[in-house]
Amino acid sequence: MRFSEPLALRSGASIADYELVYETYGKLNAQRSNAVLIPHALNASHHVAGRSAEDPDDIGWWDNMVGPGKPIDTNRFFVVGVNNLGSCFGSTGPMSINPATGLRYGPDFPVVTVEDWVDTQARLADALGIGRFAAVMGGSLGGMQALAWSHLYPQRVGHCVAIATTPKLSAQNIAFNEVARRAIITDPEFHGGRFYDHGVVPARGLHVARMIGHITYLSDDVMAERFGRMLRGGAGYGFSFDVEFEIESYLRYQAEKFAAYFDANTYLLITRALDYFDPAQSHGGDLASALSVTQAGFLVISFSTDWRFSPARSREIVQALLRNGRDVTYAEVDAPHGHDAFLLDDPQYHSLVRGYFERIATEVLA
Amino acid sequence: MRFSEPLALRSGASIADYELVYETYGKLNAQRSNAVLIPHALNASHHVAGRSAEDPDDIGWWDNMVGPGKPIDTNRFFVVGVNNLGSCFGSTGPMSINPATGLRYGPDFPVVTVEDWVDTQARLADALGIGRFAAVMGGSLGGMQALAWSHLYPQRVGHCVAIATTPKLSAQNIAFNEVARRAIITDPEFHGGRFYDHGVVPARGLHVARMIGHITYLSDDVMAERFGRMLRGGAGYGFSFDVEFEIESYLRYQAEKFAAYFDANTYLLITRALDYFDPAQSHGGDLASALSVTQAGFLVISFSTDWRFSPARSREIVQALLRNGRDVTYAEVDAPHGHDAFLLDDPQYHSLVRGYFERIATEVLA
Repeated sequence: MRFSEPLALRSGASIADYELVYETYGKLNAQRSNAVLIPHALNASHHVAGRSAEDPDDIGWWDNMVGPGKPIDTNRFFVVGVNNLGSCFGSTGPMSINPATGLRYGPDFPVVTVEDWVDTQARLADALGIGRFAAVMGGSLGGMQALAWSHLYPQRVGHCVAIATTPKLSAQNIAFNEVARRAIITDPEFHGGRFYDHGVVPARGLHVARMIGHITYLSDDVMAERFGRMLRGGAGYGFSFDVEFEIESYLRYQAEKFAAYFDANTYLLITRALDYFDPAQSHGGDLASALSVTQAGFLVISFSTDWRFSPARSREIVQALLRNGRDVTYAEVDAPHGHDAFLLDDPQYHSLVRGYFERIATEVLA
Repeated sequence: MRFSEPLALRSGASIADYELVYETYGKLNAQRSNAVLIPHALNASHHVAGRSAEDPDDIGWWDNMVGPGKPIDTNRFFVVGVNNLGSCFGSTGPMSINPATGLRYGPDFPVVTVEDWVDTQARLADALGIGRFAAVMGGSLGGMQALAWSHLYPQRVGHCVAIATTPKLSAQNIAFNEVARRAIITDPEFHGGRFYDHGVVPARGLHVARMIGHITYLSDDVMAERFGRMLRGGAGYGFSFDVEFEIESYLRYQAEKFAAYFDANTYLLITRALDYFDPAQSHGGDLASALSVTQAGFLVISFSTDWRFSPARSREIVQALLRNGRDVTYAEVDAPHGHDAFLLDDPQYHSLVRGYFERIATEVLA
């Protein structure tokens, strides 16, 4: 979808013209009451569910959650997935041509915020004829977008489903983002963000970024269970700095896979959007005040072993909502997988979401 | 101290000739019964306490713990600090000249283990005329060396004081080490470890390594308290990737300071020694069996907010010792500072150590 009306961004910059790539699943009903928006997290895209037409091996990132008969049942709901502005999966971003210069944006792409993304998603909803979403649902950074929807467009959100998320990053969260950014920016092949013109990518920086990411997505326990101290070769130490432990092999594999498809400038933009997200900031740090305008029902879910955005962070959201008398369902799911759990099909977690969407269905499909 | 007898290493390699730099504090008594060995952790040295003669601003890394009237009272104890083989503060290491080639060792320096270090420390003790240490005491990697002393040279250790340590790294611990190593090794200025010959240092890699280190040394809480989401400029976001948050400024400062003094090859060697440490490994994973030969008394201390080597890891050591009927004192100190707490002067922690060394004094200074 192309948007030609300039969009004012929170940074003070604006973007004159942009495209958003989106995918939809299911059918918008005649009352236009069954739409569900699913914004994505750091490295995902509009391709939420199903198999890609071009590449049948490319299965959507939340395919276990969204589809016919699944917790978000596309026989009943019309699901919209959208690639965010500044990302690298087809929507306008640093790899796109800047119409003002005829060159790729690169480092000139404006810094975007979670709130900016929500504004673009609202324009997409307008274009699709969706006045109000039955639900906006996301995990991690996607959960931040769902939360931002609930207070930026309160009348347009029936339910907000915020999973494994936080009302703002901690100093430790920002620190991990900063290490990743420094690794990318100081990679000699970053070329100040103009690496496209040099025919290279800052792969070494992306490797470090992705390895740090994976460590923070997994719990200590699940890493211990999956990899422990297992050695690649099996028998004894090699006394070298090559891959020896299984965990090293896993991290290198993930790092190389990531650097082959993810744009370094997008990584910087998205981690900065994470850092900046803090709806309470403009309310003197009072999250309840920031969320006082919300009208949605809320489902908030956290995972016991998530040390990136721990259950305590979800409880801050829940408490702020309860102080406003909102209708909140909160569950702390006892799952071993850490932050990654939001992408997995833990039965307790999925049945919670399924149950909540049954309730939504009774409201909007009457 | 120079050692000219070849030392066989755990890797199968040997080192023909090497020097260890050491410092001592206090006086060895006539019975030679009051010696305390304090091995160092990742980035420290033999300079445990006091002011350096060459640079009075250079205060020892455990100066709050060791000195006249301090918990390890050098009016009573003879304390030995030694820079480990392979480190970069004067002992033979990757920066030294390899006598076989006349060139710096660089990547040819053999991979050393915690157990190898303990062997070199035992030789140093021989040379100093110390048959038995009243105590071997260390924190973190230093605690691993203390633990290794207790089972490699059981008759030479009166007491083992192991603080904020672990019987082996977890997959998550190894993963953090691996990211740091990859950042160093893939830095184009690493030159396969021969950067000395190019007149450069892999500063970018060392920066990433040190930033990751600092994140894991501090607790989430203390980071929140010290830095939180405070902005450098004070007023509003800058919408850039420059330093904005105080935590970013802190990490960059620490990173640059570190890269100016620490050798990259040493970083690789020491993190590998950490990875490899696992005394239970040669006993079918049974730590109690590995520690069955110990004869020392043990003081084991952990810190409540240490998520690098959590209290649970110290309790593994304690349980293995208790299964052998050893005399163990264990304390989990409620301190907010994370892993770094072992270097700080928490009053409860210091009075525990002081009390334990009072007891040692009554045994050895009779």
